Amino acid sequence: MNLLPLLFLLPALLGLVPPMQVSAAPARQIHLLRPVMGSAGAAVKVKGVSCSSWQFGVETNSLRGWNTVPAGCESYFGHYMMGRRYREDSRAVAAAAAEYARGLQISSGGGKQIWVFDVDETSLSNLPYYSRHGFGVEPFNATLFDTWVATGTAPPLPESLKLYKELLSLGIKVVFLTGRAEEQRQITASNLKKAGYYSWEKLILRGNGALAHENALQFKSSERLKLTEQGYRIVGNIGDQWSDILGSPEGERTFKLPDPLYYIS
Amino acid sequence: MNLLPLLFLLPALLGLVPPMQVSAAPARQIHLLRPVMGSAGAAVKVKGVSCSSWQFGVETNSLRGWNTVPAGCESYFGHYMMGRRYREDSRAVAAAAAEYARGLQISSGGGKQIWVFDVDETSLSNLPYYSRHGFGVEPFNATLFDTWVATGTAPPLPESLKLYKELLSLGIKVVFLTGRAEEQRQITASNLKKAGYYSWEKLILRGNGALAHENALQFKSSERLKLTEQGYRIVGNIGDQWSDILGSPEGERTFKLPDPLYYIS
Repeated sequence: MNLLPLLFLLPALLGLVPPMQVSAAPARQIHLLRPVMGSAGAAVKVKGVSCSSWQFGVETNSLRGWNTVPAGCESYFGHYMMGRRYREDSRAVAAAAAEYARGLQISSGGGKQIWVFDVDETSLSNLPYYSRHGFGVEPFNATLFDTWVATGTAPPLPESLKLYKELLSLGIKVVFLTGRAEEQRQITASNLKKAGYYSWEKLILRGNGALAHENALQFKSSERLKLTEQGYRIVGNIGDQWSDILGSPEGERTFKLPDPLYYIS
Repeated sequence: MNLLPLLFLLPALLGLVPPMQVSAAPARQIHLLRPVMGSAGAAVKVKGVSCSSWQFGVETNSLRGWNTVPAGCESYFGHYMMGRRYREDSRAVAAAAAEYARGLQISSGGGKQIWVFDVDETSLSNLPYYSRHGFGVEPFNATLFDTWVATGTAPPLPESLKLYKELLSLGIKVVFLTGRAEEQRQITASNLKKAGYYSWEKLILRGNGALAHENALQFKSSERLKLTEQGYRIVGNIGDQWSDILGSPEGERTFKLPDPLYYIS
């Protein structure tokens, strides 16, 4: 019985799990030898639920309003995020989005068809930050995170960048819609360009005019409503949080990227 | 390299993976030794996407309108459904639902608080059927499936039955809302009782009066709207399909059970 967790680690020990490709800032190496948790995530249970099943509940929007990843799941999500599974799950979603986009009739739209991209953990990856801060197990620290954002060095999520390029080639315009503050416009624009997102129709941040009581879902829904009122047709919407893709108008199709590290309502 | 798929099968070979408890109809034994696919689902790729990442796309509503599980993923989903992971994922969702329900103020509701349960793959499990029909790889056969339904022997999904009992004990009433046809009312009621669901506020099936052009999402949304118009407050809604839990009024919280076997829009 005690061999089980180690068996799941064998592919990592044998070097069969390719590391996350982080182009801009190399992430700290995670500890592959922690024996408490295998990549199947069944060894550690939190209130009787394995880390992988907690992940299922989170990714399906069944578990809401959580503050931190359960203690004990740091190693599981470290393996998930830094190994190939995060990238493969992202690829499945981005590939489905691209396939859907290729089936759209774009030429008749008069250049008003847009695709909404969230920024953090969608267009840009903060994995270099979260790999140093416990993969969501540590409580969120706005000061430290803003310091990281200010470096402007977040790498792209490669699957999203590929989707972005394909959408542009199809004649679909891209709107970035983020909960980042208006004060972060310049560094966000600079980071997006550095990461390979060279142009966009709009970059919408959360300005001082945003209603203070609005949560992310309400803020983003109201911004999407403004876009449709301006004559845009939101053919697609991709984000890592359910608050990116729920709330009318959602967009004609929505795509949910993986993010087990934090929750934004 | 060739050892990798077999390594993932070792827990099954060692007898460490408990089988699905199917009380009513014993399911055909699946083949544990197919070497093409380990339980991590990374060995077989469909259009470059592993079975487990296809599952992620399906469960997050990013992949829609698919007819069958990709050929090549039968063994992966056989292991998922018959092994412990399906049950653990279901438990994570049902436990979150129960925790949420315990936090509600029910006494002040005048007996009008209800929880909507879907039937197939939510209250009842058709795993004895799907285990004989390729775990979603075979195209859906309505005649064969209706013959199975007519036996009235579908077992409960144990996690949902536990949630049902807890909700009743909290004073929350249960409404079953299913796309099954009105003609199947008697066998559905009988099967629910046989499975342990002894009482309910309403059992709503898709009657002959339902609009022919309505898909499941529209049918179920309009039935939930009727419930709220009758004075009910839908405090929770649980289903295995996104068409069970999207569409206003969704219910105050929604819970998505796993179902990688079929898609209903």
